[in-house]
Amino acid sequence: MTNHEFYMDLALQNARAMKGQTDPNPLVGSVIVNDNRVVGIGTHLRAGEPHAEIHALRMAGDKAHGGTIYVTLEPCSHHGRTGPCAEAIVAAGIKKVVIATLDPNPIVAGNGVKILKQAGIDVIVGILEKVAIQMNEVFNKFIVSKKPFITMKAGTTLDGKVATRTFNSKWITSEQSRLDVHQLRSENMGILVGINTVIKDDPALTSRTPNGRNPIRIILDSKLRIPMDAQVVIDKAAETWVFTTENYDREKRKALEDAGISVFVTEGAESVDPNEVVSLLGEKSVSSVLLEGGGNIHASFLENRLVDKAVLYFAPKLIGGKEAPTFLEGTGFELMKDAVELTDTDIEKIGDDFKFVGYPIY
Amino acid sequence: MTNHEFYMDLALQNARAMKGQTDPNPLVGSVIVNDNRVVGIGTHLRAGEPHAEIHALRMAGDKAHGGTIYVTLEPCSHHGRTGPCAEAIVAAGIKKVVIATLDPNPIVAGNGVKILKQAGIDVIVGILEKVAIQMNEVFNKFIVSKKPFITMKAGTTLDGKVATRTFNSKWITSEQSRLDVHQLRSENMGILVGINTVIKDDPALTSRTPNGRNPIRIILDSKLRIPMDAQVVIDKAAETWVFTTENYDREKRKALEDAGISVFVTEGAESVDPNEVVSLLGEKSVSSVLLEGGGNIHASFLENRLVDKAVLYFAPKLIGGKEAPTFLEGTGFELMKDAVELTDTDIEKIGDDFKFVGYPIY
Amino acid sequence: MTNHEFYMDLALQNARAMKGQTDPNPLVGSVIVNDNRVVGIGTHLRAGEPHAEIHALRMAGDKAHGGTIYVTLEPCSHHGRTGPCAEAIVAAGIKKVVIATLDPNPIVAGNGVKILKQAGIDVIVGILEKVAIQMNEVFNKFIVSKKPFITMKAGTTLDGKVATRTFNSKWITSEQSRLDVHQLRSENMGILVGINTVIKDDPALTSRTPNGRNPIRIILDSKLRIPMDAQVVIDKAAETWVFTTENYDREKRKALEDAGISVFVTEGAESVDPNEVVSLLGEKSVSSVLLEGGGNIHASFLENRLVDKAVLYFAPKLIGGKEAPTFLEGTGFELMKDAVELTDTDIEKIGDDFKFVGYPIY
Amino acid sequence: MTNHEFYMDLALQNARAMKGQTDPNPLVGSVIVNDNRVVGIGTHLRAGEPHAEIHALRMAGDKAHGGTIYVTLEPCSHHGRTGPCAEAIVAAGIKKVVIATLDPNPIVAGNGVKILKQAGIDVIVGILEKVAIQMNEVFNKFIVSKKPFITMKAGTTLDGKVATRTFNSKWITSEQSRLDVHQLRSENMGILVGINTVIKDDPALTSRTPNGRNPIRIILDSKLRIPMDAQVVIDKAAETWVFTTENYDREKRKALEDAGISVFVTEGAESVDPNEVVSLLGEKSVSSVLLEGGGNIHASFLENRLVDKAVLYFAPKLIGGKEAPTFLEGTGFELMKDAVELTDTDIEKIGDDFKFVGYPIY
Ligand SMILES: [Zn+2]
Ligand SMILES: [Zn+2]
Ligand SMILES: [Zn+2]
Ligand SMILES: [Zn+2]
Repeated sequence: MTNHEFYMDLALQNARAMKGQTDPNPLVGSVIVNDNRVVGIGTHLRAGEPHAEIHALRMAGDKAHGGTIYVTLEPCSHHGRTGPCAEAIVAAGIKKVVIATLDPNPIVAGNGVKILKQAGIDVIVGILEKVAIQMNEVFNKFIVSKKPFITMKAGTTLDGKVATRTFNSKWITSEQSRLDVHQLRSENMGILVGINTVIKDDPALTSRTPNGRNPIRIILDSKLRIPMDAQVVIDKAAETWVFTTENYDREKRKALEDAGISVFVTEGAESVDPNEVVSLLGEKSVSSVLLEGGGNIHASFLENRLVDKAVLYFAPKLIGGKEAPTFLEGTGFELMKDAVELTDTDIEKIGDDFKFVGYPIY
Repeated sequence: MTNHEFYMDLALQNARAMKGQTDPNPLVGSVIVNDNRVVGIGTHLRAGEPHAEIHALRMAGDKAHGGTIYVTLEPCSHHGRTGPCAEAIVAAGIKKVVIATLDPNPIVAGNGVKILKQAGIDVIVGILEKVAIQMNEVFNKFIVSKKPFITMKAGTTLDGKVATRTFNSKWITSEQSRLDVHQLRSENMGILVGINTVIKDDPALTSRTPNGRNPIRIILDSKLRIPMDAQVVIDKAAETWVFTTENYDREKRKALEDAGISVFVTEGAESVDPNEVVSLLGEKSVSSVLLEGGGNIHASFLENRLVDKAVLYFAPKLIGGKEAPTFLEGTGFELMKDAVELTDTDIEKIGDDFKFVGYPIY
Repeated sequence: MTNHEFYMDLALQNARAMKGQTDPNPLVGSVIVNDNRVVGIGTHLRAGEPHAEIHALRMAGDKAHGGTIYVTLEPCSHHGRTGPCAEAIVAAGIKKVVIATLDPNPIVAGNGVKILKQAGIDVIVGILEKVAIQMNEVFNKFIVSKKPFITMKAGTTLDGKVATRTFNSKWITSEQSRLDVHQLRSENMGILVGINTVIKDDPALTSRTPNGRNPIRIILDSKLRIPMDAQVVIDKAAETWVFTTENYDREKRKALEDAGISVFVTEGAESVDPNEVVSLLGEKSVSSVLLEGGGNIHASFLENRLVDKAVLYFAPKLIGGKEAPTFLEGTGFELMKDAVELTDTDIEKIGDDFKFVGYPIY
Repeated sequence: MTNHEFYMDLALQNARAMKGQTDPNPLVGSVIVNDNRVVGIGTHLRAGEPHAEIHALRMAGDKAHGGTIYVTLEPCSHHGRTGPCAEAIVAAGIKKVVIATLDPNPIVAGNGVKILKQAGIDVIVGILEKVAIQMNEVFNKFIVSKKPFITMKAGTTLDGKVATRTFNSKWITSEQSRLDVHQLRSENMGILVGINTVIKDDPALTSRTPNGRNPIRIILDSKLRIPMDAQVVIDKAAETWVFTTENYDREKRKALEDAGISVFVTEGAESVDPNEVVSLLGEKSVSSVLLEGGGNIHASFLENRLVDKAVLYFAPKLIGGKEAPTFLEGTGFELMKDAVELTDTDIEKIGDDFKFVGYPIY
């Protein structure tokens, strides 16, 4: 590991540890080195608060002067709450800037570097770049597309079932897998399910990890069938957003809104169009969504090429049943050659279960 | 590794390499050591041919006298084609016998050891015992129960589907997985499918590995709907056995038998009872069967607790479809707590797919 | 990994990355968490500058109030430049303090915790304790004994030789090993050699890693034989301290001091007593010393039980020669049972060489 | 693994397990396959007994006809006790021969293949070739050079010492290392030490592994100083050969010969020339020798480029002492650039020690 990699790795560690608390902003870490000593470390803690570079510059104080700053993402050039970081770096007298990856937004990419270079600062780009890009897969999609990064999650038997034919589903996966799911939830801004899941399981859809932030509960409910005594309606544990169609029941809407639930009406009378939901969520700055079923919801998102990542927990169990629901239903593709393949796959043991991660190729 | 383990390991290596060619006999290997030198090695090659010990004794000749024989399974005490091995060992002047595991058949277990001890031979049992038992999982079941060891195999998408809703299934898994399946086939004496699989896919059900022995094709076909031009009827690549019900079509049966197909009539008029099939197969010395679908066949065997092992190939693909068939259908269990759990699970990458192996706990 | 472990691990990462720049202070890292979010990170950067907790509290600002602070070492209770950290923690309104390990100094151990508890703060001690202790092996020795932690380093052929019989020694080990040595040097405050090494090799004894701090060069030279044109005398790359005996040459001393070299006179006329050197270095706040030969120096330190750690680079070479020097000479122990054994040993490949690390048991 | 590799691997396993019992012949294994079944296995057990192919052909009997034989070494073409194997293969009606590696002896290499091809047999060479060559490193050297393969072995402290300055050496290495040495001894035909080692340590030089064959004890003793009551003289545990110079004591020689010791007189009056010893050992069919010290013997063999392999056991101990002997002494090379480098190095933990293996490059 070179020195550049050593310091960038430290910046990456501090960035990565903030996972789940910077949305909709990216994870960013920074380290300042002067005369072969670290003189400041910083990480972006929360949207609206100082960027990583500002924290590092504050810690370094005078010692930033003449030093080298490592930052996992190109310093910003726009005026945010703490001003453009590129200008703060120039003002602090930094001599060299080492960047892992440029801004993923093509509109601003390179602007930060330009400011730095115009100030006569030496700039190096690309140290541990791949790692830095992967760390912000959510942000990188959102900033370009203004649509959330969508992770499809399922806990399933080996035969793909998510419940028995009688819709009994407690519990398929092990304690450890369920803990891992709560972690996943806390890392996403939203968690999306279909109305059938709410009616059948009445889930809380909260993150029960000790440090878990609760995501917004997003319900697709074309006819506003959601029970007024559903947990997501009454528990106040997190926001609940219901997406419905033009065909909705006016009175039910009012009741829901009185209960503090947000109701969004999408175009069309039959079913809620996932594309429209995704666009609306993006407009509302929801940059990451965990899809938690049921199988029809998963299918409609996958068929619309909206799933960015799949996380599947396989319990070593067999349940059978032609009528038992699987985690991916809908119409399905017609020919095997049309199946969605996943790449960058990984499988690991988690308790007695196996956790699979992969990225669909469309 | 002690010396006992070293020589037993060599015997196990020679036994294991015969996988698929000794049925219905177990895999057995043997090594004879005298004066710290190996003087003979043997392995059981084929039912009806000499046991491992006899081969090793022949290679050793006079040098067996005063030596130690290592054998992975208790030497037999019954009169087979080459006589009881225990007596041959005594006759050869062997001084010590080291055995991995006793005969799994409780009726004869210990008899070989008794003969050896009565002849004043020193006997040690239990060296690398667990490995030796696992190696003969098929034989160990068969010898006790007179029923075949049944392996349920499926090549599936991540969502458990074995075909699209239009029954398109070529190909789910990768080249490497399919090669592995051909190896599996060559290791089993029979391969069992339901009539729907024959009608829909018209499979050859042969092992296309270069060294692949073709298993007997076993078709469950309650109404003798099998097409007379099905590959398994006309290709003569291996025996084909059809199990039907009392309700069968007499003319069709004659036509099949004229075509060289064996037809077996089971009790009952509606569907073929898997328990009866399994008993009949056992009577016919079929000690191992690979279950290759479809999902209803798998379900009926699993629900009858007849599946001994599951081997599943997961392709990193998603196909979806409520109507798309999964590898385990039937009625299915009613409650998640009734699901069949699998133990001793293992997962490994094979090409781009993941191969899962596990053993149902009933 | 629990949440406590997760945050402590982050604190440890930030502490560990400062290796070589905090002497004589220990490596310490800190993280502040509030409402399940990290609100501040800090690390101790340099002796005389704020402790890790202070940096973390500054970053957190108001958000420290009601939060939990993780710190890899018990917060201090004494008045340093930034006041006792324990009091700063109390003042910031922190509710819980999670500590990896208590202060290694028995005189003050527990005092920080006492202050915190008296303020009604919840205190947990022992999270990732073993890792935290090992990270500060240097400091932990120094703070208790007031003597430096001594690492004996050698680059050797497989037959233990550090030079040929003609004292040719360039190069025994590979480029990678030598790079690693420069890293080791930068992590120690002093580097100690005997006068013979200076006379024969005229080494610079600097750290040529890009981020390398140069340690103080410490020369044991009983008769002040050091050449006035030695690199360590003329290059000004780092301080040079010469330890001599009462028998020293007055004029030479003056010449050396005029050249900016510090000369220390130890008791006794014959040879420099390593125990006295070590005590003097401790008094001068030199907390870590790398022993770089020759073999007699190593032997005298080892025999006096002054070596705390051995780092040996074995080149896959054989040189031979009864007269060729080995890295451990002197008189040597008389009986094999008196040999110094090493524990917690580790060996890893580094280029074509093997790097051995171990800790002597006395 | 292809089928060819599968069967060759089985042949290699059977060959390798005979390590130490085939000298001066190579390790060879063979497998015969017919109609996708193994029909015979064989391995060379002992010089003077049938070659691997013959054992495999005997086990196969009629079933060899039309089959494929796998053999780890090219079948011989010369008339040994069981005739040329190439002709036996032809006579058995084998159709294909798969060979790992050709005969290492350039004089006969390819002759076996020629006979097979002339008989119209299909021949494949090179399956798992590298493994097969490495397995017979001893034989491959001997058959070409008529000189033994020499392994230098030492059990040493980390500082290269094999005894304290008082020549105390019990025990440097751990129980496990010493057991490993006994295994090494049993794998070599001879074990060679200098007379000083006999005088100082009075070793038995036998292999105390349960299955250990005792190598010939070879003593270099220029002046026949060997004590008449040395263990190697009186214990009759194995042959003892003493190499001396023309200057030897006639009476002592007679006494030794009366005691059953062989005495060989080499040219020159001062010291025994290792080159002459090695040539003589080769003439006497000693194909492998383990060099067990002392340091001068090791040095003289290494300087004469006679060491083929080094096996070093490093105990995690430091003993020191300028006068303490190292495992490689003599004059030694003059410049570091002349040091003998080792390649294909490997290091593994064995008990608390580290075992190093490497091959000198001359
Ligand atoms: Zn910024
Ligand atoms: Zn038998
Ligand atoms: Zn403090
Ligand atoms: Zn031959």
